[in-house]
Amino acid sequence: VSSHDPVIGLDIGGTKIAAGWVVNGALVGDLITEPTPVSPESFLTAQAKLVEALQAKHPEQMAKLIGISTAGMVDALNGKVVGSTGNLPALQGHPNLKADLESRTGLTVHVENDANAAAFGEFAVGSGQPYDSVLLITLGTGVGGGIIINGDMLRGAHFAAGEIGHIGIAQTKDRRCTCGRWDCWEAYASGTGLKQTARLILKGVAKSDAVAVLRGPKPIEDVRTHDVIDSWKAGNAVAQQIMDQWHEDIAIGLGSVMNVIDPDAVVIGGGLAQFVNYEQLSRQLELRAMSPYFKLHPATLSNAGIVGAALLAQKYAIPSPAHAA
Amino acid sequence: VSSHDPVIGLDIGGTKIAAGWVVNGALVGDLITEPTPVSPESFLTAQAKLVEALQAKHPEQMAKLIGISTAGMVDALNGKVVGSTGNLPALQGHPNLKADLESRTGLTVHVENDANAAAFGEFAVGSGQPYDSVLLITLGTGVGGGIIINGDMLRGAHFAAGEIGHIGIAQTKDRRCTCGRWDCWEAYASGTGLKQTARLILKGVAKSDAVAVLRGPKPIEDVRTHDVIDSWKAGNAVAQQIMDQWHEDIAIGLGSVMNVIDPDAVVIGGGLAQFVNYEQLSRQLELRAMSPYFKLHPATLSNAGIVGAALLAQKYAIPSPAHAA
Repeated sequence: VSSHDPVIGLDIGGTKIAAGWVVNGALVGDLITEPTPVSPESFLTAQAKLVEALQAKHPEQMAKLIGISTAGMVDALNGKVVGSTGNLPALQGHPNLKADLESRTGLTVHVENDANAAAFGEFAVGSGQPYDSVLLITLGTGVGGGIIINGDMLRGAHFAAGEIGHIGIAQTKDRRCTCGRWDCWEAYASGTGLKQTARLILKGVAKSDAVAVLRGPKPIEDVRTHDVIDSWKAGNAVAQQIMDQWHEDIAIGLGSVMNVIDPDAVVIGGGLAQFVNYEQLSRQLELRAMSPYFKLHPATLSNAGIVGAALLAQKYAIPSPAHAA
Repeated sequence: VSSHDPVIGLDIGGTKIAAGWVVNGALVGDLITEPTPVSPESFLTAQAKLVEALQAKHPEQMAKLIGISTAGMVDALNGKVVGSTGNLPALQGHPNLKADLESRTGLTVHVENDANAAAFGEFAVGSGQPYDSVLLITLGTGVGGGIIINGDMLRGAHFAAGEIGHIGIAQTKDRRCTCGRWDCWEAYASGTGLKQTARLILKGVAKSDAVAVLRGPKPIEDVRTHDVIDSWKAGNAVAQQIMDQWHEDIAIGLGSVMNVIDPDAVVIGGGLAQFVNYEQLSRQLELRAMSPYFKLHPATLSNAGIVGAALLAQKYAIPSPAHAA
């Protein structure tokens, strides 16, 4: 298998499965998608269908590799989902995605956690490209992480490396994380955390100020991320205060992770990355990181998970014994 | 250079420099020491003197390598101290220990941060030996860390990897760390942190209870680590409460570090490691670590820094250009 051969990248999300044709680390043509089925059998069928469709669209050369990016904790050596997330019922039985899809398609499959896949994509062909060691953090509904050290994906001994959203940044038991723990970084730096910060700050200001951020008369509890972002963009001072606290919350956890692994560069992705003020975050990180020479970059790939999973398949995929025989 | 060849290990501390003859990862004969000089020139002379003395004691085979373990941030690739600690004035000018000692002795020198050297010692010939990836934490006056991933020393892009004592575990600004930051893990889990926890708890109990822990009439401010340890060993309930909090403080930071790198095993060293209740710490880590399959071990080497530095020299030492020419 040459690195110029095409690879099919699959991104398994809670609502849809997206698939793309990846050549030399770049998507060729459009993504195709299927809704994410609930039953394990239909789930597998949907993936096989996407693979067949992509092969048919590219008759010039068959792909021999599939790279999968999926939510959940993944044993990437065996292609097995070992810890699943609530919004992916098809993964709850801890299926061996690799073995299942290999026997369906006859292709070689590599499975990786989605944050890891995105990190590897950014490392290989995105804004982490100049560096040997890269930390990707994703700021979205949750906070995820992926770590590449000297070109190798760091998965951890129990596939829990990069679970950086669940480092503890406080001891006050003020915020319960979705994982059940108290005071995880994710409960502050994620979109959910940002909303919670907004609620706390809005409850402490004059009603007229709160209404301005809320963009109209609704309960403070119903504040949306975009209310804060829009008010902030419009120059609202209370929204600025909320965003300042959010930046500080990002810096608290990120500084800690940097003091553990000290990567060449930190790449920030996820839906909220576009709202990060990199200068402001850098100033706050200077107070926390032991080395002042860190580098911050916004993520640049629009489909880092699919591209990263494809590249990881090229680097790491091993046919499972049954399939090789 | 064969791995069976002898290596001289040097451990540079604030009060003394210790040196040992290391063969196959084991100390041969006794350590010899010199007081740590303040001036850079005498500092170098003291090291050269120890090297000569060890060579003279082992006339059967000359050592060709020196491994140095030193406090401070170390550029191990160039053998340069890039960030020094207050108690080692000879290192303040950021000397190139490798080049200096190589031109003095004619031997090849490798320099490593002391926590890294100790981690590599434990990984290679101590309680981390069965594992590929090991995190060493040292609980002493401060909290240090060293990380080995798949057999390689993780130094970080700016030599700040493993600076785990300086992850932030609170946002209350209750405790100032020796590094100047607030609420570092070290300010809670170190001996200094344990004493501070003791002061807080002792101020909240009846005077007679405080006196029992203090082992006599002295101000609470003057509590020593050993007062707490001795009272705890004698079954004192307040001392137990202090030690319980200390274990929780250890777990808070350690759980976070584990969620970043997920090592095969955690090895606990440093002067306070002997007072860790491993069962208690495991229970608290189960609440924090994303993988329940972690392994905790006490450190087993009595001179992990010297042995580790020697082994790192065997693995990584490269003669500097001047010396090689």
